[in-house]
Amino acid sequence: MLTGAFISAAIAMELPGPGTIYLGQTLQFRSPVTLGDTLTVALEITDKHSSRPWLTISTIVRNQNDKEVARGEATVMAPAKKETVTVIPPPAVQLLEDPDSASVDAN
Amino acid sequence: MLTGAFISAAIAMELPGPGTIYLGQTLQFRSPVTLGDTLTVALEITDKHSSRPWLTISTIVRNQNDKEVARGEATVMAPAKKETVTVIPPPAVQLLEDPDSASVDAN
Repeated sequence: MLTGAFISAAIAMELPGPGTIYLGQTLQFRSPVTLGDTLTVALEITDKHSSRPWLTISTIVRNQNDKEVARGEATVMAPAKKETVTVIPPPAVQLLEDPDSASVDAN
Repeated sequence: MLTGAFISAAIAMELPGPGTIYLGQTLQFRSPVTLGDTLTVALEITDKHSSRPWLTISTIVRNQNDKEVARGEATVMAPAKKETVTVIPPPAVQLLEDPDSASVDAN
């Protein structure tokens, strides 16, 4: 399902992009994904509703060896006009060996 | 898709549990999920292949107001025998205001 999160991010940020409402997703998991793999998400709009802004998007995820690890279809409602979004970079994170030191450092 | 990750975790840890191979998932997103929501995943085995260990599992996710936020179906290969898994608690994490301090502290 981490794979699914990458698809979700690609839809929300790229195609159709910000303002998209995610209605549904099907996914078949074809091959295992392991630590260190590099995944590429390919999106292709395959169908458009005749009157409503509903799109069907083919979603295929491949690993660094071009092996298909997952495929499926997304159903989305596309935004009616172009929208932009400001992405705030996530804060830096430090892993703490000793959980107790977290509260100490936070004070 | 965070919702999907919760379903994935429930399948991997509870029903059928450790050793399960996740073959596919369909999801319809019914209502928005917002920060602070408490989600509950309900799993029900709805079909079993006559000869192979393939199960269809109904997956319904509700929020704290019992409103359905997502529903779908998982297809899994159940483990042939009971397996157990040791879950290592994730390390404590500290967010750093200044990204530079991460490398300093790590040295």
